[in-house]
Amino acid sequence: MAKKNRSIEITQVTEWKDGGTTRVEDYLAAEEPLEMRAGRLSLGVTLRTPGDDEELVAGFLFTEGIISRPEDLMALESVSDTTLQKNLVRVTLDPAVRLEANGAARRFSAGSACGVCGKASIAQLRRRGLRRPTAAAPFDPEILCQLPPKLRTAQDVFGRTGGLHAAALFGPGGDLLVLREDIGRHNAVDKVIGWALLGGLLPLSDHVLLVSGRGGFEIVQKAIVAGIPLLASVSAPSSLAVQLARELGLTLVGFLRGRRFVIYAGEERISVSALAQAGIS
Amino acid sequence: MAKKNRSIEITQVTEWKDGGTTRVEDYLAAEEPLEMRAGRLSLGVTLRTPGDDEELVAGFLFTEGIISRPEDLMALESVSDTTLQKNLVRVTLDPAVRLEANGAARRFSAGSACGVCGKASIAQLRRRGLRRPTAAAPFDPEILCQLPPKLRTAQDVFGRTGGLHAAALFGPGGDLLVLREDIGRHNAVDKVIGWALLGGLLPLSDHVLLVSGRGGFEIVQKAIVAGIPLLASVSAPSSLAVQLARELGLTLVGFLRGRRFVIYAGEERISVSALAQAGIS
Repeated sequence: MAKKNRSIEITQVTEWKDGGTTRVEDYLAAEEPLEMRAGRLSLGVTLRTPGDDEELVAGFLFTEGIISRPEDLMALESVSDTTLQKNLVRVTLDPAVRLEANGAARRFSAGSACGVCGKASIAQLRRRGLRRPTAAAPFDPEILCQLPPKLRTAQDVFGRTGGLHAAALFGPGGDLLVLREDIGRHNAVDKVIGWALLGGLLPLSDHVLLVSGRGGFEIVQKAIVAGIPLLASVSAPSSLAVQLARELGLTLVGFLRGRRFVIYAGEERISVSALAQAGIS
Repeated sequence: MAKKNRSIEITQVTEWKDGGTTRVEDYLAAEEPLEMRAGRLSLGVTLRTPGDDEELVAGFLFTEGIISRPEDLMALESVSDTTLQKNLVRVTLDPAVRLEANGAARRFSAGSACGVCGKASIAQLRRRGLRRPTAAAPFDPEILCQLPPKLRTAQDVFGRTGGLHAAALFGPGGDLLVLREDIGRHNAVDKVIGWALLGGLLPLSDHVLLVSGRGGFEIVQKAIVAGIPLLASVSAPSSLAVQLARELGLTLVGFLRGRRFVIYAGEERISVSALAQAGIS
């Protein structure tokens, strides 16, 4: 049972049940800070589940706009060592990349100085030159319904700790290409996109990104940056996520459970014939 | 059904079910950026669900260590107006408070320059002078089991959108004192603690904080800053959350569901008699 896995830790806990208590072993989702550094400049620190750190950093730099092309990332070196309690990834960027100290702060900074609002946040993304994702063909609803069971089957860690978010990338035929988990929802998505970036697969036209949690503004943003045309979630999206998906042309699916889902944006990418049969023009 | 509530938005969506589609109205959890400003200095921007913005800002400033005493916060003015798409809270701080630009960046910055790790993050919290929370008497396990149903009953918004995190503060007898919801787990906790700060209730000795999601490092940190002795969650904590709770003396309960829960730290605060009856010394 106790498979060696950096993303879980084992600890002794007390279980209380119906008035009685027992000492038991429990599996915890690992959470450790990770620092990203370019030369002597710290690009920020994020709390993450150890594992796939280079993918996480590559994905983070790309989806947050610190780099805009895979070529901007010249080298990545993970010098993490949990026994030494050292969690660091060194990056070498193209000298043309303009760096700001504490790049991670972008996550919380919509950057507008006057009356921050959802519209301003979306306008700022437009200024980053984000384009409408493309897909060669519409997606088949029947294939979409098969994705959550495929994700769950692959999610051995999730079943054990109950504490990890998952993100998985599927090909247009519904094949699972990569699954990543993290204590942080954003990190799981960054790990998937970083995997694709390091593998030379960007943009991810024709692909589906499935996340285990909620689809919020930042998850939608990351999907669009990676060129993903369809983002699906087993839960609900936020209002700003829906607004952004509609304005930037991402297909956003929520509550994907069993043989049911809700299309919040970009309905045209869900197979026309299937919709037409049901009387939707 | 359509109660006026700033924390939800209504939109038209397409529901796909068993091959058929329907256009339906759906409730979305609202998400909008909020800027915090002290004079002309921006303290950062956070994505949050509108409502209780002053509590959110008060709680954020306090739990993140930007202010260290309620008296440091001299005035709060919410100038948010969703129709004008303006989301701003102005704060007036005691002139003795030392401010850093972009205070929100602290959330992601453990701030250590050499080999960031969990131990360093905890050491940094110790330097902020965090003390072990106190409680006059142990907590009754039977009362703990009643808290999640009380939270769910009070959570009308949650049932409608499925997209909000909740945090609730209970008195030692299990009375629900305040419930706050937000698209961001941290924000729900900051709103609860901000409510207590503005009401002059800090430190929250003898109280229980219940969160609907996972108990991570930052949630544990916020509970300890507010002097809360017991943090309970219906889900799993992370490894770093457990480590911090053990080192700083917070009682951490997870998987609080039905008549069962897991004690990850601070077992001595769960009623001794109830544990003794089951044969635990």
